[in-house]
Amino acid sequence: MNTTPHIPHLHAIVLAGGSGTRFWPLSRELAPKQFVSIFGGVSLITRAVMRVSTMVDDSGIHVLTNERLLDELRNHLKSQAEIKGLAVDYLAEPTPRNTAAAIALAAAYLVRIDPDAIMVVLPSDHLLEDGERWERTMRVAAGLAAEGRLVTLGLTPSYPETGYGYIRMGSPIPGHAEENVLGHEVVEFVEKPDKETAEAFLDTGEYLWNSGMLVARADAVLRELTLAGEKAATEASSGSAKIAQTAGVVAASAPSTWTTDEARALFASLPSVPFDKAALEVSGRVAVVPADLTWSDVGSLLALESVADSDERGNTLSGNVVDVDSHDSIVYSADRLVATLGLKDMIVVDTADATLVASKDRAQDVRLIVDALRVMGAREVVESRSSLRPWGSWTMLVKGDSFQVKTIDVLPGHRLSLQSHGHRSEHWIVVEGTALVTIDDATLTLSTGESGYIPLGSVHRLENAGAVPLRIVEVAVGDYLGEDDIVRYEDDWSR
Amino acid sequence: MNTTPHIPHLHAIVLAGGSGTRFWPLSRELAPKQFVSIFGGVSLITRAVMRVSTMVDDSGIHVLTNERLLDELRNHLKSQAEIKGLAVDYLAEPTPRNTAAAIALAAAYLVRIDPDAIMVVLPSDHLLEDGERWERTMRVAAGLAAEGRLVTLGLTPSYPETGYGYIRMGSPIPGHAEENVLGHEVVEFVEKPDKETAEAFLDTGEYLWNSGMLVARADAVLRELTLAGEKAATEASSGSAKIAQTAGVVAASAPSTWTTDEARALFASLPSVPFDKAALEVSGRVAVVPADLTWSDVGSLLALESVADSDERGNTLSGNVVDVDSHDSIVYSADRLVATLGLKDMIVVDTADATLVASKDRAQDVRLIVDALRVMGAREVVESRSSLRPWGSWTMLVKGDSFQVKTIDVLPGHRLSLQSHGHRSEHWIVVEGTALVTIDDATLTLSTGESGYIPLGSVHRLENAGAVPLRIVEVAVGDYLGEDDIVRYEDDWSR
Repeated sequence: MNTTPHIPHLHAIVLAGGSGTRFWPLSRELAPKQFVSIFGGVSLITRAVMRVSTMVDDSGIHVLTNERLLDELRNHLKSQAEIKGLAVDYLAEPTPRNTAAAIALAAAYLVRIDPDAIMVVLPSDHLLEDGERWERTMRVAAGLAAEGRLVTLGLTPSYPETGYGYIRMGSPIPGHAEENVLGHEVVEFVEKPDKETAEAFLDTGEYLWNSGMLVARADAVLRELTLAGEKAATEASSGSAKIAQTAGVVAASAPSTWTTDEARALFASLPSVPFDKAALEVSGRVAVVPADLTWSDVGSLLALESVADSDERGNTLSGNVVDVDSHDSIVYSADRLVATLGLKDMIVVDTADATLVASKDRAQDVRLIVDALRVMGAREVVESRSSLRPWGSWTMLVKGDSFQVKTIDVLPGHRLSLQSHGHRSEHWIVVEGTALVTIDDATLTLSTGESGYIPLGSVHRLENAGAVPLRIVEVAVGDYLGEDDIVRYEDDWSR
Repeated sequence: MNTTPHIPHLHAIVLAGGSGTRFWPLSRELAPKQFVSIFGGVSLITRAVMRVSTMVDDSGIHVLTNERLLDELRNHLKSQAEIKGLAVDYLAEPTPRNTAAAIALAAAYLVRIDPDAIMVVLPSDHLLEDGERWERTMRVAAGLAAEGRLVTLGLTPSYPETGYGYIRMGSPIPGHAEENVLGHEVVEFVEKPDKETAEAFLDTGEYLWNSGMLVARADAVLRELTLAGEKAATEASSGSAKIAQTAGVVAASAPSTWTTDEARALFASLPSVPFDKAALEVSGRVAVVPADLTWSDVGSLLALESVADSDERGNTLSGNVVDVDSHDSIVYSADRLVATLGLKDMIVVDTADATLVASKDRAQDVRLIVDALRVMGAREVVESRSSLRPWGSWTMLVKGDSFQVKTIDVLPGHRLSLQSHGHRSEHWIVVEGTALVTIDDATLTLSTGESGYIPLGSVHRLENAGAVPLRIVEVAVGDYLGEDDIVRYEDDWSR
């Protein structure tokens, strides 16, 4: 047994996109379900980063997201104590173009920084067991990948799910077994089967759930895409060569220049196809490693059943919840008091600014609510009452026509941008910690209980120069209170 | 037809008690359902006061409540623009002892201030039509009452309700008819019947719902109670004479002295029985006036169905609500966003600090939730996030361990008490209007956008000397933030 889990040239590509629809109101457009810290208190994306951190080099963790989410994702991961100090590299697709283009982009980028890179592509919207069994699986997969194969991880199915894709295993591949983990040839990939077919799959013992996890040499990813495109065996694979080539062109610049108009136009011109269809189903160089890992698709709010133990009537109650006589229901409260009476097969999810009540059998249709809210232009679909920032976070307490009140938390050693507002004055009251405040030419230190006044138009900055968290209450008064009334003169985050 | 509705010697006794259980979370212990301003925007108690205000003398409106609710009730009615300027007299029972003792107390009090007083006892937890038809009914009832009868108002039943008491009418009483309204003898009072009996009642056309409304001379109330006690025909009536006598003794002092220990002990010693059982069912001097008035028992949250029109799927949606595919459900949001998906026969009520989700067929059991919350000592059962005060109101925005943020609204021309705190300093930021602020020996005027600092221990006062409303944001910082950390030096309300 290998006791050093570190695998040479291994790079993790953690996928973190998502639209925040199926998990609303816990997820929002700017905080998709990967950000939600309800499963064991740690967000799914943080768990994914932790899961690979022991296996890769210091500069081997890359998170792939889209441009809209980049700032939010960075702020989120920065706020996670569990991965403090870990170097995380960020890649942002210029436009969402499905997984073939995304994986190709990541591969092209990795080839440039490490020609022998082996990439493990890891979706972050699942719960997945980590630990020794997971690492053993990864080592076997990496060994196969080093030989040039595109290696998928297949999960032992526990029931005939019709919503997943399946992989049929072929004969074992010698040379990389570790204990009972060994790679297999792939006979076929099967899209979501019907119930009967799924049941038959389980009976054979030859089918695995397609986990969406891929382990492969970065250059092999690009090569197999190119070959698949040349074969053009299916409609989906006919553009694969273009995907490989264009991703290479886009990634040939440093990531910071990916957002040039040219790169954006190039990338946007790519076909939007899944990597499975663009490469895996066409390639002759695939393998599957069956993994008997505990895994949970956090596919809908029904996943909240795993957050707490159920009571004797089959309810999962979590947070400040009082129930009388309900059955088989999920009630989750983030903060406020929720009382339930005589429910049956219901889901109640309560957050600071929005509540969802749904019949359990409609859990997959929460997106219909999100669609309706989008049509209305409801703020609650985009973000919650709180917003993470690179320097900390803020929470809106009340927003009136001519005033608003926020709490603002600044991390030790951080500061906001040097800024001014054209339409509001602000009062800052320090309620925890000590603030260093700049107002035009003056600098003052405010201790807990003290306050400062920021006149309209003055150039000001808030800083936590101390070693403990700083929290202030900000009362803004003015005729226009939009977040866009800000002029930034200096910013530690180049915003 | 009498065109001046004013009725000589008429005094309204508006009953306003209630425990806030069946209408939670819209009602609370300190804000029972009479206070809830959801039906047409005006609270039930305000409607009751408005309904009698045109018929009684300037000093003829008396609201009877209990000591715990007295301040809240006064603050509530003071905040109601619809009855601004109306003189309202307050009576508070020393202890809740059911309606026989309460009505006797009110009667004894009225006899003292107006020996010819006719009292109309009006519960305030219903919706009731007012207008000309209501006034005509009152005139006929008052005419019968002037002759010494205890006159009940009976409502024409519209369906065989099993939760109400019924009154069987006897022959008409000549001499007081007005248009089609005339009084009848009473054959019997019947407690909540079963379904079959109720259906039979409706078929006869002789039975009316017992509205709980009573019109009688105050001295007749005390006399009939005394006679009932002497007859002692039932267990309930055996203590009636004592009720009449003790109420007379308690009421012999001014209301302000009712809370002496002696009065309290006397009143507490009275049997707790309803007036119907203590007097009406035993007395030979009763009458009933059938009233074909639109009336609604606001008996449970199901009454919210009358707040808005129902949609094509039978839902009543009110407030910031988004629904997809629900049926026959009530969704009421006071403020926050509530989304519902695929509900059937459900009630959802959302307020700033608590949400209730209940099966419609359990509407009568909301008290079970309230009981559970009481056992937990939950603040949400006692009061909401906002609190009315004689000078205005406040709303808690956030309460941390060492700081809290409130908005405080002060009515024009009003001021808070001159006070100090031993454990907190306060920052006041004016966000609407102009504040006159006293801090120890200094007085300053703060305009919108300006702020003042109240150091720990300083003697201070907030006043709205202007003609428009004043709103401030108060940020308090300290090691103890309880409402009881207050020393009052001067108070316009003798608190």
